[in-house]
Amino acid sequence: MNKQKISMISELIAKNELGAVIFFRPDELVMTLGYRPYWGLSVEVCFEGNDPILYVPALEPDLRLPKDITVKRYPWGETSSDPFEILYGMIAEDIKKYGSNSKPISLVKTVGNTSPCILSGEQPPLPTDFVDNLMKVSEAGYKDVEKEILDLYNFKTREDIEGIKLCNKVAGIGIKAFYDSLQAGLTEAEVSAKMEYAVRAEIGNDGVLYASGFAQVQSGINGADGGRFNWVTGKKLEDGDLVMTEFAVVVNGYWADITRTGKVGTPTKEDIRLHEAVKKAQDDALSLVREGAIAEDIHNAAQEALDKEGVGKYFTHGLGHGVGFRYHDPGIRIAKGNKEALKEGMVITIEPGIYDSSFGGIRIEENVLVTKNGCEILSKFTRELKGD
Amino acid sequence: MNKQKISMISELIAKNELGAVIFFRPDELVMTLGYRPYWGLSVEVCFEGNDPILYVPALEPDLRLPKDITVKRYPWGETSSDPFEILYGMIAEDIKKYGSNSKPISLVKTVGNTSPCILSGEQPPLPTDFVDNLMKVSEAGYKDVEKEILDLYNFKTREDIEGIKLCNKVAGIGIKAFYDSLQAGLTEAEVSAKMEYAVRAEIGNDGVLYASGFAQVQSGINGADGGRFNWVTGKKLEDGDLVMTEFAVVVNGYWADITRTGKVGTPTKEDIRLHEAVKKAQDDALSLVREGAIAEDIHNAAQEALDKEGVGKYFTHGLGHGVGFRYHDPGIRIAKGNKEALKEGMVITIEPGIYDSSFGGIRIEENVLVTKNGCEILSKFTRELKGD
Repeated sequence: MNKQKISMISELIAKNELGAVIFFRPDELVMTLGYRPYWGLSVEVCFEGNDPILYVPALEPDLRLPKDITVKRYPWGETSSDPFEILYGMIAEDIKKYGSNSKPISLVKTVGNTSPCILSGEQPPLPTDFVDNLMKVSEAGYKDVEKEILDLYNFKTREDIEGIKLCNKVAGIGIKAFYDSLQAGLTEAEVSAKMEYAVRAEIGNDGVLYASGFAQVQSGINGADGGRFNWVTGKKLEDGDLVMTEFAVVVNGYWADITRTGKVGTPTKEDIRLHEAVKKAQDDALSLVREGAIAEDIHNAAQEALDKEGVGKYFTHGLGHGVGFRYHDPGIRIAKGNKEALKEGMVITIEPGIYDSSFGGIRIEENVLVTKNGCEILSKFTRELKGD
Repeated sequence: MNKQKISMISELIAKNELGAVIFFRPDELVMTLGYRPYWGLSVEVCFEGNDPILYVPALEPDLRLPKDITVKRYPWGETSSDPFEILYGMIAEDIKKYGSNSKPISLVKTVGNTSPCILSGEQPPLPTDFVDNLMKVSEAGYKDVEKEILDLYNFKTREDIEGIKLCNKVAGIGIKAFYDSLQAGLTEAEVSAKMEYAVRAEIGNDGVLYASGFAQVQSGINGADGGRFNWVTGKKLEDGDLVMTEFAVVVNGYWADITRTGKVGTPTKEDIRLHEAVKKAQDDALSLVREGAIAEDIHNAAQEALDKEGVGKYFTHGLGHGVGFRYHDPGIRIAKGNKEALKEGMVITIEPGIYDSSFGGIRIEENVLVTKNGCEILSKFTRELKGD
């Protein structure tokens, strides 16, 4: 249980005069309990002052359930009658007991828009009326404080940061596999497969209970699409290709989102000029990151650095976003027009990139922790074209 | 576009006096168009008699969009104003033009409960009021025909079967990697990583546009949990372990769901007895599969075969389910108490399994196509303990 986050939720409940706040999306459970559900069918109910209660399906693995919280099982997978009806009843009763039945509950209503559960080949088999039913577990109904709940993603506690650091460490092993694979003749898919292999094989090492990588690889002309989407094909790497990887990694429920660009063969002068321009844009942006910095100023610093090198027109997306509980957290966006100020404890990406059919795609993406006077780079591995 | 499926939807629209049926979940788009969305933000609207229209976000890859259907783009990723408002407006207008605005629309309401989109590290960033808004695109509102829509998953057309066969072919390459990895000293995670590698590296070969594997591996005592959940840990395989893999594979949007059990070292007499019992249960069940067979009869045949060998009490789950558009399709369940009859064109799993701490877990899972007079096994690779 993440005590600091749970106490923030308790304050949110008091301030909004709620009976309880309900979480069920996999990333919400990571954020509040450090627990990534297996089936994606677990529900957490938070109260003002009292400890939260976690409801899990009967088939949920016992291992790795959070240990410092009341866990109740409902008979999903074990009964032919409707296990969800039983679940709603259990929650309604506990809200009466530990929260307040005369105040409304709140929750984020979407079932999608989340990180996947561990069984990530499929999203949770939640019934279509699941959210409708949760909205009725208090007699006082539902109150919308969605924005405040989503704001919780912006702040990372000490435990969260530890989890994100471990994830970045594992991501670094995948990035090493990327640089080691920049050989003419391998396909983009093979490079992706080697990166994902490196991450997956880490399970069991140094506190890594669960790990998956999602590697996209675009080489040569395919990189020109990299500002719109990231992809992987059977194209073979050719000598002279720039190769860009977009790499999402999840370890124990915490996420990293890394991009690197490498070169097959010897970089040309023009490769080096373009790559240095992107590095400079990243450095200029990073030099501004600290508590109180305005999001759009950071974006604009990167834009200006790219403009100076004459490649600003190839930078077609926002500079960054929150990361850690998801591949892309809800909350802060580092983008043109956003006048929000950064806060200590945010973890954000800084990812300038340029894309054109004349050279392909070049993006470098770091994950950084915002501190009072600056930032800490969590993705501390090489960003050079040749990986050293 | 899957013409046979589209014509079934047209009939469903006529029969229920609907203005249109709307699909947006990734597996729905595979089922009706053979198209797996990249961002998970694509919406398809089907009308009576007229061809469907597909709405995709501006950033959707052009490559691999379905070619024989009208595709319209809405400005997601390209505008600072709300792109979804624009999308709802476009749909409302087209329903007036090609469907009927005086009849209600229908759709499956859950955003989750679906296969992932290609960007599978994260589920689609759909707004929380997405479904609510889709329900209002016709002036006549919404009508619930969810059961009939979900029934569409039960029938696989010729194109679907081709897609599922290709997926099974790729899954077989992963299963070969499984058998090749049954060596003492490798971790469960490394076996999983090798299987997932084998699938991923197939991209670009023989019509494989996109492929991912999700391999769970349970060895020795860990297999005893295999009837409740499948998992992967850092445990090393040991000589004498039975090793069970649960393997989901997606190729171009179509799914296979395979289980095999292998042995590290030489199988004992008891291993062979137990494994033969599971094979016999599978064969007895398969011998009944055909158009018109009753689901629970097939389940019971497997149960009886296991009972005869004295291991029936270790069989703790249903025998099978629909598969192909998802890892577990909605629709038919091959389970105790289900008196539904199989239909030609269904693709189902047949997966007897036994689990106990005395031996671990043994399950064998095939994917089969139901035909008029029997079935065709799509997962035609070895099911033997030593892989040959």
